[in-house]
Amino acid sequence: MVNGFDAARLGSLPDRERKMIERRQMLLGSSYRLFYENPVHITKAKGVWLYGPDGETYLDAYNNVPSVGHCHPHVVDAISHQASQLNTHTRYLNDQILSYSERLLATFPADLDRVMYTCTGSEAVDLALRLARYYTGGTGIIITENAYHGVTASAAEISPLLGDSVPLGQHVLTVPAPDTYRANGRDVGAALAQDVAKAIGHMRRRGITPAAFIADSVFSTDGVFADPPGFLKPVVDVLNKAGVLYIADEVQPGFGRVGSNMWGFARHEVVPDIAVIGKPMGNGMPIAAAIMKSDIQECFGQDIRYFNTFGANNVSLAAASAVLDVIKNENLMHNARKTGDYLLAGMNSLKATFTSIGDVRGSGLFLGLEFVGNQDSREPDSLLALKVVNGLRDRRVLISASGLNGNVLKIRPPLPFTCENADVLLDALHDALVEIERTRPNR
Amino acid sequence: MVNGFDAARLGSLPDRERKMIERRQMLLGSSYRLFYENPVHITKAKGVWLYGPDGETYLDAYNNVPSVGHCHPHVVDAISHQASQLNTHTRYLNDQILSYSERLLATFPADLDRVMYTCTGSEAVDLALRLARYYTGGTGIIITENAYHGVTASAAEISPLLGDSVPLGQHVLTVPAPDTYRANGRDVGAALAQDVAKAIGHMRRRGITPAAFIADSVFSTDGVFADPPGFLKPVVDVLNKAGVLYIADEVQPGFGRVGSNMWGFARHEVVPDIAVIGKPMGNGMPIAAAIMKSDIQECFGQDIRYFNTFGANNVSLAAASAVLDVIKNENLMHNARKTGDYLLAGMNSLKATFTSIGDVRGSGLFLGLEFVGNQDSREPDSLLALKVVNGLRDRRVLISASGLNGNVLKIRPPLPFTCENADVLLDALHDALVEIERTRPNR
Repeated sequence: MVNGFDAARLGSLPDRERKMIERRQMLLGSSYRLFYENPVHITKAKGVWLYGPDGETYLDAYNNVPSVGHCHPHVVDAISHQASQLNTHTRYLNDQILSYSERLLATFPADLDRVMYTCTGSEAVDLALRLARYYTGGTGIIITENAYHGVTASAAEISPLLGDSVPLGQHVLTVPAPDTYRANGRDVGAALAQDVAKAIGHMRRRGITPAAFIADSVFSTDGVFADPPGFLKPVVDVLNKAGVLYIADEVQPGFGRVGSNMWGFARHEVVPDIAVIGKPMGNGMPIAAAIMKSDIQECFGQDIRYFNTFGANNVSLAAASAVLDVIKNENLMHNARKTGDYLLAGMNSLKATFTSIGDVRGSGLFLGLEFVGNQDSREPDSLLALKVVNGLRDRRVLISASGLNGNVLKIRPPLPFTCENADVLLDALHDALVEIERTRPNR
Repeated sequence: MVNGFDAARLGSLPDRERKMIERRQMLLGSSYRLFYENPVHITKAKGVWLYGPDGETYLDAYNNVPSVGHCHPHVVDAISHQASQLNTHTRYLNDQILSYSERLLATFPADLDRVMYTCTGSEAVDLALRLARYYTGGTGIIITENAYHGVTASAAEISPLLGDSVPLGQHVLTVPAPDTYRANGRDVGAALAQDVAKAIGHMRRRGITPAAFIADSVFSTDGVFADPPGFLKPVVDVLNKAGVLYIADEVQPGFGRVGSNMWGFARHEVVPDIAVIGKPMGNGMPIAAAIMKSDIQECFGQDIRYFNTFGANNVSLAAASAVLDVIKNENLMHNARKTGDYLLAGMNSLKATFTSIGDVRGSGLFLGLEFVGNQDSREPDSLLALKVVNGLRDRRVLISASGLNGNVLKIRPPLPFTCENADVLLDALHDALVEIERTRPNR
């Protein structure tokens, strides 16, 4: 895992944190990983800030879940009020799920007119796969090379990011991500469309009916590839012609983070058959959903019921509704664009100074900064990315890294992130890079 | 689905509810089902009571999720406070998950010493299957005939309750549930052990390595079979000898509901390899977990990381911790036993009056009442059960039905249910049966 804590370093940590990590190991076991060489101990949060037990302040430039800001008062009030009134399931009639669904679906293209709720993005992906397979009668799924779509057995089968110990499904094929940095003038959309068409052909020649292509519309784990807007169009054309569904995984880019649109696929002016949403939906309260065309829902729903006990529970719905309020009332999509553009410009300035920065990219407040051996070879420099992530952590700015080689800084702060916050991040990034270059042996 | 609303009845409903159901259909589609011939419209809840929009009061004798009572003030306070302080994930250090895990694991046998958190019981079952398959290298899963373990693709494959449109997995075998009512003097435990041994043999002869037997320890969806305590012992002996894991699905019986013990398997004096918990864990807040022996965790964890974004989020953990407080402070396990015994006695009195009641059974506040054509033939009477469920609903007492034939009343109220509440339920049950017999054509 990129930026995972290495237990061999345990002895070097302060007593308090060392003991906590030892308890974690005994209670939770080794599937649980911490971030950073020196894990961060957090006890409170507010807005874009996280606080440690001794009042240390960390600027959060990483967490996309508390998207309208940690512990936003409007969301907290909604949660508190609803928890005191009613928190039950969807087999009784209640207006809340209907009103929220109307608001939510109004943000999608008209063709996407049904919503089914889950608690997590993994469950929503898992449900989307069930829907796609039932509707198409197919089993084949096409994904990108370093995709991550979740941790249920079915979602893990389409998540190569999880590593070799989690095998891909036997009917799962990967295609290269649309690496805009290494495109060398090629049209990444045309190339992806061609690769997807090849994968469909490969399946069919082997008697496997392809069900769906699923992709995160900013290709987060592949390294953040958002531009040029529209590059997904030829891919969706291929899918539509072949009768293969397009599932847009909006768990990371969704809810306005890309700045220009509420949903990442909308930047590409395409309409998926199913969209999957989650993480920022309830600002940390567990709620996620699959949104789909009604014929896909009806085909499944006439035969198969779906009941998720906590899915769309009233408290999570109240939080989700408050999140929509805040995105609108605080004009957060506009802020994501404004601060995102400011950050991009600042990162581009750094690129002019530091030859190790190969590329700077992204949309709104979903940004990537790629480290390379040098700007000509474009050889990924994973070690440098890791040093920078830890260097920023030491400067109390939290981000992480991503991409097939882990050499891409992944910058996804809560949406109220200001240009002043961006300056703190940019200054820390500059200082970390200067220090790393200063202490680096001659090359 | 037992007790599902039939859309053909839409025209007979009041305008307000009819319109809501039409909106539901348009927004959510037909996988979403409502309870009852005349769906219940709920806007508030407190303790063991649910309230409709016009102040109608329903006695809740069904919902096992708000286990310490709807909107319990101690849980509401914990949620509200935590939501205002911090709600983040498990990749930073924080004491809360450690303290709660220590409290939780202290309620399990010493061998079960690791916990991994998810948001839903489905996810916890899905994770338990991943763990069992990785640890054993096997793929075969043994379940009971009408089992239900969840809605992820992997959990649905072991959930025959979902119906024929959801096929069982190719390496899934079913065994008959321990039907104590139709045992005719046979030892249900010995019979189940024999059936499980046969299933293991069947798999091995076909080159399938069995990974696990999974069962709900009160066999809720099979019809509620709890007695005699200890009947699972020979089953677990067979599994241990064969090197097949025993996964205890405690999502329904767990957290003191069975009255005698915190966990259903403990009534049988057996120790599972993995236990799965959920529903009542956070009194409605999404939190669930798999608890396991450390060697199973370590085998998986050394190779495979597990990160569930909302799993063990701070707000759900705060609710879960408050639930443990309330179970202890309000002596709810004792109350479950006391009221459960009182209800059982009352249901047995009804059985003496009504020949349609074939059997009354259960443990604590997890009870079943089985309707039959007559007490000799023991022919299941599903229609009568459905009429009674709806008759109770008309009397504003909420329960549902269960079992392979849907002829078993499923009674699982919140744990603070008192003997006075039980009287309301028993009186309504009596009246509903009298009315049904009165209006029933001669047989």
